[in-house]
Amino acid sequence: MDRDFLKMSSGELSIVRRELEERYAEFQARKLKLNMARGKPGAEQLDISDAILESVNPKFAADGTDCRNYGGLEGLPEMRQFFGEALKIAPENIIIGGNSSLNLMYDAMARLMLFGTQGNTPWCKLPKVKFLCPSPGYDRHFAVTEEFGFELITVPMTGNGPDMEIVETLVREDDTIKGIWCVPLYSNPEGVVYSDETVSRLAAMKCAAPDFRIFWDNAYGVHHLYEEIELKDIFAECAKAGNPDRVLYFFSTSKITYPGAGVSMVASSAANCAEILKHMTIQTIGHDKLNQLRTLQILKDAEGLKAQMKKQAELLRPKFELVLRTLEKELAGTGLAQWKNPKGGYFVALDTMDGCAKETIRLAKEAGVTMTGAGATFPYKNDPRDRNIRIAPTFPPLEELAVAMELFCLCVKLAAVRKLMA
Amino acid sequence: MDRDFLKMSSGELSIVRRELEERYAEFQARKLKLNMARGKPGAEQLDISDAILESVNPKFAADGTDCRNYGGLEGLPEMRQFFGEALKIAPENIIIGGNSSLNLMYDAMARLMLFGTQGNTPWCKLPKVKFLCPSPGYDRHFAVTEEFGFELITVPMTGNGPDMEIVETLVREDDTIKGIWCVPLYSNPEGVVYSDETVSRLAAMKCAAPDFRIFWDNAYGVHHLYEEIELKDIFAECAKAGNPDRVLYFFSTSKITYPGAGVSMVASSAANCAEILKHMTIQTIGHDKLNQLRTLQILKDAEGLKAQMKKQAELLRPKFELVLRTLEKELAGTGLAQWKNPKGGYFVALDTMDGCAKETIRLAKEAGVTMTGAGATFPYKNDPRDRNIRIAPTFPPLEELAVAMELFCLCVKLAAVRKLMA
Repeated sequence: MDRDFLKMSSGELSIVRRELEERYAEFQARKLKLNMARGKPGAEQLDISDAILESVNPKFAADGTDCRNYGGLEGLPEMRQFFGEALKIAPENIIIGGNSSLNLMYDAMARLMLFGTQGNTPWCKLPKVKFLCPSPGYDRHFAVTEEFGFELITVPMTGNGPDMEIVETLVREDDTIKGIWCVPLYSNPEGVVYSDETVSRLAAMKCAAPDFRIFWDNAYGVHHLYEEIELKDIFAECAKAGNPDRVLYFFSTSKITYPGAGVSMVASSAANCAEILKHMTIQTIGHDKLNQLRTLQILKDAEGLKAQMKKQAELLRPKFELVLRTLEKELAGTGLAQWKNPKGGYFVALDTMDGCAKETIRLAKEAGVTMTGAGATFPYKNDPRDRNIRIAPTFPPLEELAVAMELFCLCVKLAAVRKLMA
Repeated sequence: MDRDFLKMSSGELSIVRRELEERYAEFQARKLKLNMARGKPGAEQLDISDAILESVNPKFAADGTDCRNYGGLEGLPEMRQFFGEALKIAPENIIIGGNSSLNLMYDAMARLMLFGTQGNTPWCKLPKVKFLCPSPGYDRHFAVTEEFGFELITVPMTGNGPDMEIVETLVREDDTIKGIWCVPLYSNPEGVVYSDETVSRLAAMKCAAPDFRIFWDNAYGVHHLYEEIELKDIFAECAKAGNPDRVLYFFSTSKITYPGAGVSMVASSAANCAEILKHMTIQTIGHDKLNQLRTLQILKDAEGLKAQMKKQAELLRPKFELVLRTLEKELAGTGLAQWKNPKGGYFVALDTMDGCAKETIRLAKEAGVTMTGAGATFPYKNDPRDRNIRIAPTFPPLEELAVAMELFCLCVKLAAVRKLMA
């Protein structure tokens, strides 16, 4: 019998369906309770940073600042230096935040709404604001722009980043399009790496809106599973193209040390940083400097960061390889699913047959395995072809992941065969 | 010669002036560099919390939550419980923030601007928003409302809180008045304690704006120098009066443990908390839970908090008493200054003769002592009578404070005598 479901006779499909349903019933009887919904590190990934909790924490910065007290709006010099070296950004163009880069993105968007930027009209005063959402993408990004009432425009992803033909045409013609979400390295959820050409075109493209902003969330900027992949320098490209203020660059140590207690940052042009600090000084006296010291205590410098990320990769590689091996074994050649092989980041994305993602996830859930909701990777949680599923392999232990993936592949097939026979 | 400058002859004033100028020149020659500008705790106040840095920090919450990982939007149950017991607020009406209650206030104001509250028009869509600023008050409060473009209305402070006749009249008639700033216990800068009647009237007053909000910044809620003073329960009063959603209550451990690395909270009605969380879940995955555990590790419970605040008071009492003793010795009976004797909080406020505050502060600065800028305690940094000065005695060591206060009193007199002779 051919592996390709699309070539099976209806008799063959019946037989396969019966087998799948029997196996599914067996899974149900096991009363599993597994979770592959979110990009949460596993406990073993957190353990590698526990020196933070177990050693005496410093209180003084290199310049003598008492980090227990108030102050330090833009962050400690050594923290800015650290991020600057790691990401090849000028430290003076980096502002340190609290424990959440999402919070920095939300606040940046709120400031654009309330105050506008560089003399342009505040976005809350405009009748309409649109935002480009390369999809599949990150649900929390889309939610921020939805919260502020923007119209979200889906832009298809290619293997090199957003489809730049479409992006360029849209932003050239429509001055209500104010920005784009980007996860340029190991994109969420597909693991796509933006090509040099994509980076250059984003930096140089002609935008009808003078205050068009790229929200450059380099969440997985050092989260390589294999060799290091370097992203083209977006700031250099923007400067070259005469668009120095176009990019707001976000990063954090959430998936380097502790997700709940890392250190975040935003980087931008000198003009944008001055503007951000002007508002930030009204919002807070300063973020937690002791936690900056704690984080540096274990990461130390760019070399220390590399060593830490090697440890992370060692823990994550087996999980990603298990996922990809299982997909290959169970679904390759079936005609029922497509996926990419990410070389870093936190996810594997899979496309089912059209119209099968919701049902696949429902089936998995009924058998005790929670996945990211279907549709989550598209604006308004609406995947027009109902096919994209985000697999988050990091949180469950390896043995649980193996069971969850086996069930998941079964659900992909069961949903498909039922659809084919409907 | 009479101590009262206002009763001196011009000859007597000349003699006094010469003496003051000689002493001032001596101070200048000492090239001091002292700072009484901000309400920053002194290093010895920070030392009492250093178990936080020096002991092994816990990672699991009482319910087993791994606090290193993502999650916990509303804060750890034990942290909400702690604040609830300490402040007599239902824990389920408390939401935990990051290290800054100012940030929570700013964010609350930004949400009112962007989304409105309980179905009312977002404030950014209104042609005009006004905000009541009891003055002298806290410069950072006024700056938040100025940042959002509100018209700031000065309301005089009395010994019992804001002048309630004026407040009630204003809010009854003008629906563009959307709120009021309050520091109800040991107000910044005068140390005024809101009377029971003031609390009740704020809770019950008729407001033309249905979305009128009291920003209740109980910054010094447990910061007693002597016996404990209890504030009337504003939530109970609001509920009784049928205005359950009127108050947003802010507090933090910034001046209990570490100013830069404490834990903040906002409390409000169930309806308001639900609204806050609905937006917060878009803004962040959750604040730093490890720091909540660290803070609880040393404060433990309401009793532990009391013990900690006793230690703080022991360190602060000598400083406050030194300030008040010096004012008494140097300025009592001179007719040149008035002040209150605060029983807690972080400041002593002093009124010079009209038109002398700026000059007094300039003189102090020229001789090496930095004070909070004149005017800072009024909206737009504009003290109409140019007389209010905020003294912040907490940061300098006692010996430095003694020198600074001696110089300060000299400057009050020198500015006054020059004015009297002009």
